Amino acid sequence: MKNFVYQAGTKILFGKNQVNNLVDEVLTYSNRVLITYGKNSVIKSGLLEKVTSLFKEMGVFYKELNGIQPNPRISSVRDGIRLCRENDLGFILALGGGSVIDASKAMAAGVNYDGDAWDFCLRKAVVKNPLPIGCALTLAATGSEMNGNAVISNDETQEKLAMGSDLLRPKVSMLDPTYTFSVNKWQTAAGTVDIMSHIFEQYFTPDKGTDIQDNIAESIVRTCIKYGPIAIREPENYEARANLMWASSLALNGLTSTGKMMGDWATHGIEHEVSAIYDLTHGAGLAIIFPYWMEYVLTENTAYKFARLGRNVFNILEEDELSAAKQTIMAIRSFFNSLDMPSKLSEVDIPDEYFKIMGDKACKFGPIGYFKRLNNEAVTQILMMAK
Amino acid sequence: MKNFVYQAGTKILFGKNQVNNLVDEVLTYSNRVLITYGKNSVIKSGLLEKVTSLFKEMGVFYKELNGIQPNPRISSVRDGIRLCRENDLGFILALGGGSVIDASKAMAAGVNYDGDAWDFCLRKAVVKNPLPIGCALTLAATGSEMNGNAVISNDETQEKLAMGSDLLRPKVSMLDPTYTFSVNKWQTAAGTVDIMSHIFEQYFTPDKGTDIQDNIAESIVRTCIKYGPIAIREPENYEARANLMWASSLALNGLTSTGKMMGDWATHGIEHEVSAIYDLTHGAGLAIIFPYWMEYVLTENTAYKFARLGRNVFNILEEDELSAAKQTIMAIRSFFNSLDMPSKLSEVDIPDEYFKIMGDKACKFGPIGYFKRLNNEAVTQILMMAK
Repeated sequence: MKNFVYQAGTKILFGKNQVNNLVDEVLTYSNRVLITYGKNSVIKSGLLEKVTSLFKEMGVFYKELNGIQPNPRISSVRDGIRLCRENDLGFILALGGGSVIDASKAMAAGVNYDGDAWDFCLRKAVVKNPLPIGCALTLAATGSEMNGNAVISNDETQEKLAMGSDLLRPKVSMLDPTYTFSVNKWQTAAGTVDIMSHIFEQYFTPDKGTDIQDNIAESIVRTCIKYGPIAIREPENYEARANLMWASSLALNGLTSTGKMMGDWATHGIEHEVSAIYDLTHGAGLAIIFPYWMEYVLTENTAYKFARLGRNVFNILEEDELSAAKQTIMAIRSFFNSLDMPSKLSEVDIPDEYFKIMGDKACKFGPIGYFKRLNNEAVTQILMMAK
Repeated sequence: MKNFVYQAGTKILFGKNQVNNLVDEVLTYSNRVLITYGKNSVIKSGLLEKVTSLFKEMGVFYKELNGIQPNPRISSVRDGIRLCRENDLGFILALGGGSVIDASKAMAAGVNYDGDAWDFCLRKAVVKNPLPIGCALTLAATGSEMNGNAVISNDETQEKLAMGSDLLRPKVSMLDPTYTFSVNKWQTAAGTVDIMSHIFEQYFTPDKGTDIQDNIAESIVRTCIKYGPIAIREPENYEARANLMWASSLALNGLTSTGKMMGDWATHGIEHEVSAIYDLTHGAGLAIIFPYWMEYVLTENTAYKFARLGRNVFNILEEDELSAAKQTIMAIRSFFNSLDMPSKLSEVDIPDEYFKIMGDKACKFGPIGYFKRLNNEAVTQILMMAK
């Protein structure tokens, strides 16, 4: 187990009727707030109305920024920064899923930075003195509600890049499972895949002596396997939504990565290149690519970890490591398929036209992956397998 | 799943050579520090010397309070409070295991309180404005390093009572597994039992829909079952010590209790009464009492949860709930025995003389337990079973 620092300081307000508590927490930071959201869902659900009426009641000055898209754009980030500066706002409250939260983090980072916020994604600038942010989560998927990471897309350059800082961890996150009742089957499935993929990225590593992290990782995967299908079948099943929601936060708040050198994250890197060009739902892209990545990196050296997951989570009894690993890959693909997720890029109308370019872009900062290092040709090959 | 608030804000510095980082963190709070410790182990290990020489180098004013005993006494707490007040100290740094940390929490609570610190244990006072505390952990057991709870003993009244507040969570905890290399077999075994017991207290509850918490709980128990015996056999096995150490923190930082009404905690309540009189090692007391508590509360209504643990952790295949539950109890007792922990109170020279008094004292604030409510007679009966 490697040395680590762990501090998951986000205050989680979990459950029904927490909006008052959320607003109280926001007020401990500032009474001038930017509210960010995407489309109509937070209007339909009444969440926006609840927050703004409480803000009015309490004399909070607020501005709204809506229209933040899935795979959030740097242009939205720039709009948010402008609004914060023009109105001297001191807190950003994201209402939505990972995209809205990610965009809000980039805004928070940019307000007190002189250059352009895209610099954070290009690794040209380090986050200093950001605005505090908070969120009311409406989708169980990215885990952005409890970590300091964000992924931002740039329309002009067709890039989708990650940025992050511990300083960007939300100060408070409200997780009310009832706000995910209206998430449709496709997004619920994609969210479940996203949560599992976060675990996989941190689980499939060559680190030794990290049993407790790996045991916890397996326990979160078990939760997804049990409750993903239930939430799809019964969208208003509170227990299913609650377990998935808390799983999304715990899957990516450091709990399963502490003590490891780093995560693998190659599959995310590859998927980001696909969705940078095609605006594919992130979880659906991961459902396609993850099993192919596993097949590509499977060797006698990596098989043991795939086999371990299969035995501990998918009830695979096979004793031979390589055979058990192959069965695990089949079990994962089969589970994703059972959620009606695609298993080929062609199923979501993505041709092979840019696979070479995607490979080059995925490795723009050098080879990716930790379980097995991948260069641009390897990435292109995985995409060809997933064609 | 019940509503919950979760914020495990303690900054964990995990691994080797973290003393400099610990001292840096302390300095962000105060440069006037009370160092607390027990006996000679922190002198022998060089930990005290490392901390004090860094303090001297950095011009930190510090006082030392040593001699804090296992089952820490309110008299030590009062000594610490006096030292802090007389020297205007602003931070308490505990070097040791749960007893030293617990005593330091009670001191921290007492410094700015006008009455006697025992009032917190008697529920006559609520913690307000405590001093910040930190620790360098030297024993994997109580989890005190990442929560706001403390258990204090009172020699005069032969009472052992819990107190707690989120405000008492350590600001920073250094977890260096190498400082547990010198923990002897008995204490290593007792610590492993203590960690598992914390999980059991939060796992054996009637709550529904808390699968993710229970899955994580099982993953921590698996970690103890794997690494407890290794740490006993090979005291300098870093991975074993590291996994147990991190398990101790995660077992009682809220992770497995969130979303539940409360934990059971009857077994701890009973053990506290025994060790209030006999100064028994806490984990050894738990190893004796837990299986008898399980036998006493086992009914057709409670069997399912014992059975679940057995199936998921002890590879029990029995399908009948009641039979599987009984096998789980046997498996737990057998595991504790394999660590050379006692299974009867008579083995540690505790007679039945005070069992009735212990039952009365355990229920002084009313019936205890949540999985099944226990009155004073039930407690006495469990003690008789464990005789």
